[in-house]
Amino acid sequence: MKQAAVRAHTNIALIKYWGKRDEHLFLPVNSSLSLTLDKLFTDTLVCFDPSLTEDLFYLNGTKQNQMETQKISRFINLFRDQTDVKDFVRVESINHVPTAAGLASSASAFAALAGAANIASGLQLEPQALSTYARRGSGSSTRSLFGGFVEWNKGTNSDDSMAIQIDDANWDIGMVIVAVNTSEKKVSSREGMKRTVETSPFYSVWEETAEADLVEIKQAISNQDFQTLGEITERNGMKMHGTMLGATPPLSYWEPASIQAIQIVKHLREQGVLCYVTMDAGPNVKVLCRLSEADKIKEALLEKFSDDQLLITGPGKGIRELTADEKSVYSW
Amino acid sequence: MKQAAVRAHTNIALIKYWGKRDEHLFLPVNSSLSLTLDKLFTDTLVCFDPSLTEDLFYLNGTKQNQMETQKISRFINLFRDQTDVKDFVRVESINHVPTAAGLASSASAFAALAGAANIASGLQLEPQALSTYARRGSGSSTRSLFGGFVEWNKGTNSDDSMAIQIDDANWDIGMVIVAVNTSEKKVSSREGMKRTVETSPFYSVWEETAEADLVEIKQAISNQDFQTLGEITERNGMKMHGTMLGATPPLSYWEPASIQAIQIVKHLREQGVLCYVTMDAGPNVKVLCRLSEADKIKEALLEKFSDDQLLITGPGKGIRELTADEKSVYSW
Repeated sequence: MKQAAVRAHTNIALIKYWGKRDEHLFLPVNSSLSLTLDKLFTDTLVCFDPSLTEDLFYLNGTKQNQMETQKISRFINLFRDQTDVKDFVRVESINHVPTAAGLASSASAFAALAGAANIASGLQLEPQALSTYARRGSGSSTRSLFGGFVEWNKGTNSDDSMAIQIDDANWDIGMVIVAVNTSEKKVSSREGMKRTVETSPFYSVWEETAEADLVEIKQAISNQDFQTLGEITERNGMKMHGTMLGATPPLSYWEPASIQAIQIVKHLREQGVLCYVTMDAGPNVKVLCRLSEADKIKEALLEKFSDDQLLITGPGKGIRELTADEKSVYSW
Repeated sequence: MKQAAVRAHTNIALIKYWGKRDEHLFLPVNSSLSLTLDKLFTDTLVCFDPSLTEDLFYLNGTKQNQMETQKISRFINLFRDQTDVKDFVRVESINHVPTAAGLASSASAFAALAGAANIASGLQLEPQALSTYARRGSGSSTRSLFGGFVEWNKGTNSDDSMAIQIDDANWDIGMVIVAVNTSEKKVSSREGMKRTVETSPFYSVWEETAEADLVEIKQAISNQDFQTLGEITERNGMKMHGTMLGATPPLSYWEPASIQAIQIVKHLREQGVLCYVTMDAGPNVKVLCRLSEADKIKEALLEKFSDDQLLITGPGKGIRELTADEKSVYSW
């Protein structure tokens, strides 16, 4: 049996990905940039097994239904198509995303799956080429192949729309995640993106200025200029939400508690603490900060949020194989 | 002594005014459209008095300081400049805007002041021409000269940037005002407008599409098509807030309770009640609805808001002189 087990961390975009130019190939309208996070990851085993008569997918120990399993099968086919390995596959995936964090796990999930399939199938692509595979599972997973600050270059086609590490983020960078609401959202990212691209008159401005924001944030990272990094992050995220508000009908993922978190961050900043908000297609708030100041920020957030709604994390690393010790804790 | 007392109602824009093309003359970037409201008004006496040695301004019975009085003096000068009346003036103004409604009263205030000065000075302009005077006190007051649905045409210069009644709104139209927060806002409308015009990359799109929204909403009013009227209202307001989110730094007037109100309105709509949200440069939420359904909407809002935060109103009329009876209640 050909098998491999890989760990991948999730990531939060600082320059957002919001809109596809190709729905099938997951080609994005604009390039994006993210921070990979240490505390949120997925461990995934891929095992090509000649004795199987169908693909099997277990998530957190539970066998998944046909619809979920088909997504995995289609993704694994990318590897079966390119190699001699044609067996059915057993995929075992464990999400280490605290439920309370309420973050979509598709970024780490497809990055781990791509990483494990890459080794198990013997395809052995370099991470950058592999990121073009991950992309076809979930756009944001493209960036989770690498650690630290990662750019997903929109590219010109399916083969060069790929991720690259910009900086390892090994310089007092952190995030406080505020889990506002962990229930399923009414409008999926996919649907929200589509509505925004198709109906928001702001969309072309989003596209143009996101590219400009990317150039600026890369310069700020290169200078290790945290304040500029934070200001661009907050501005770009708010601009994405402004773009959504321009859609018909208007789209907003914010909840009352999202604004409470934003107000606390603004207040901290008025007191001289450099911290900045970014939000995705959901009500949760992510606070980009100095890791050395994360405890102070968490303390301020505890005024309105409970301890289990708040998670501090530093930068995460790229994908890697699990050690035998790490694998031994699972019943794979 | 030449004197007159006039009542003017406030108005809420359905197609927003957000940005000046001339700061001094209050010429707007785009044309706007509003609904004048019955329950919120200002009564103002203007009395040119030869015995006075300076202009005096009393608001709700309290003498105002030099800075506030100077704003009135400059405005009254528009009338003194055009007539033989050169005396100092005593202005007495009573705001009938429930404090809890937390609405800016400048629209009704300058409309009433313009109306009273127009009669007292003997200038006797027609309302439309008078609206170009009101405009120079406060942009939104331009629209408060008239009742019902009112367009403020941006015009080409100071003499033709004026208001006109589109429809008397005498067809089951109402508004529920949700007073979220009545404390002074951190960023004034004037400042917020300026920041948006100068820094939001969405601004030119706002300008273009607001004009298109205006054409559509006038058609909906003409058809008495309430659903389309409401959808355009909500879309235009959200687009204005999206334009602000694009500013640097991002600008938002929303508070947690604003989103609570928005969520209740959305929920009502899912249940088949036609009601739509609009917000201005502050956290208060205005719900455009059928007046006949306003009680039902208020009841739903009472789940999260107290009775004194909620005000139901129908459409208001244009400016008019107070009757002797009405005047007699004041100590003027």
